[in-house]
Amino acid sequence: MSTDNANKPRVLCFSGLDPSGGAGIQADIEALFSAGCHCLPVITSLTVQDSRNVLAAESVAPALLVQQARAVLEDVSVQAIKIGLLGSVQSMEVIHTILKDYPQIPVVLDPILWAGGGYEFSSEDVASAMKSLLLPQTHVLTPNTRELEALSPFADTQDAGAASLLELGCKHVLLTGTHADTRYVINSLYTDHSPVQRFEWPRLPHEYHGSGCTLAASLAAYLAHGFAIGEAARRAQQYTWESLQAGSRPGFGQWLPDRAYWNT
Amino acid sequence: MSTDNANKPRVLCFSGLDPSGGAGIQADIEALFSAGCHCLPVITSLTVQDSRNVLAAESVAPALLVQQARAVLEDVSVQAIKIGLLGSVQSMEVIHTILKDYPQIPVVLDPILWAGGGYEFSSEDVASAMKSLLLPQTHVLTPNTRELEALSPFADTQDAGAASLLELGCKHVLLTGTHADTRYVINSLYTDHSPVQRFEWPRLPHEYHGSGCTLAASLAAYLAHGFAIGEAARRAQQYTWESLQAGSRPGFGQWLPDRAYWNT
Repeated sequence: MSTDNANKPRVLCFSGLDPSGGAGIQADIEALFSAGCHCLPVITSLTVQDSRNVLAAESVAPALLVQQARAVLEDVSVQAIKIGLLGSVQSMEVIHTILKDYPQIPVVLDPILWAGGGYEFSSEDVASAMKSLLLPQTHVLTPNTRELEALSPFADTQDAGAASLLELGCKHVLLTGTHADTRYVINSLYTDHSPVQRFEWPRLPHEYHGSGCTLAASLAAYLAHGFAIGEAARRAQQYTWESLQAGSRPGFGQWLPDRAYWNT
Repeated sequence: MSTDNANKPRVLCFSGLDPSGGAGIQADIEALFSAGCHCLPVITSLTVQDSRNVLAAESVAPALLVQQARAVLEDVSVQAIKIGLLGSVQSMEVIHTILKDYPQIPVVLDPILWAGGGYEFSSEDVASAMKSLLLPQTHVLTPNTRELEALSPFADTQDAGAASLLELGCKHVLLTGTHADTRYVINSLYTDHSPVQRFEWPRLPHEYHGSGCTLAASLAAYLAHGFAIGEAARRAQQYTWESLQAGSRPGFGQWLPDRAYWNT
């Protein structure tokens, strides 16, 4: 990977702010930094949370998201876009409009519907808005199994659920299988008209805060570097697994990843 | 420095969000990460800016700052606090109240009054509020010469200005001398009843966005590691200088530091 600073790939991130530093924009900044990319951060929601759960979340005004993203996109070139927590349908609408102007930039969408601790970020039907507004513009969707089920409630199997999301227009689905009891975590990369690619990782013993954000940001980093989807997905999973394995438990709740560069 | 993840020092940062990723909370996160610390980020203000200047800034509600900071402080131990952009007197009042409860945690205050491009963050008399509310709780204040003059308008010399701020209760003043024409940048560390310690650095050729944030965050990191003030100040300046030297110009405006770990 290049460490040529002037040519460092840049990734625009729409993410929440998590003051515990485990998830959200800090996960993006650290994962991108470790992969030799530069984050362009736009905060979508300010959350109050500790290592146990989210206590409150306040969405940022959609007009402010637009101003921030436009100011950056008009100033510098951007090689990938990563979308995390979007607490309102209106924020999806404005991001949809921005993405329409930059169809050549690959988008990684982490479809966050709940916090790890169970907090539900919105009472609106964000799953439905996500499907109609953002999925057609998404290069890679990174749901966990619970998010996949919420996005494809009528599918009989996970494979069928992922296929239904590919039909809505996203190019790839990287489904994480941590929410299971198997000895190995099996992640699946779905691509239309291609065989499913499975990745197996030794299951780690704890609940980790920010693992999904780390994976999606790292994936965006490797896409920004120009890696093909299979290799980008493998590298992002490797980095995330190493970060989780190096993790620790700073407070009374979940474990936090250690996204230090020496994990790469 | 320890890379023992479980014992990683934690630094609570009150900072603005800069979507160009050069200054604000991203500077904090990257500088702390590079120094083996973990950032606990609280956003004080959402700014719209590119690499040239700040176009707009929206302060976060003081009640939300309090909730975020308290959630974190009650969940984990914190070894240092760094304060950057505070766009309102009310946010200084609530942070003053929080700091009163944690007198043992060293505070680094970067007294941001203007953006590098000239944008003034507040029309209120924040300099006056900063002096009465926050300086008595500050371990190290890190002004540039322009900020020093705003904080000590009646002082005849920089040394006298710094001395007047020590009298208000902060323990140390680390004055940066980049705003000058000298061949070397001379930074000065003031401590009451001690000789001034001068640091000389070869002047770099550009205007850099986020240099002050990088310095203050790095200083907080080394204090959190337990270094004495002189050594913490020297290490923070070294890291900042290396980051600036490795910087690049991504857009049409100022240069951005590269805070990559290999600078340490």
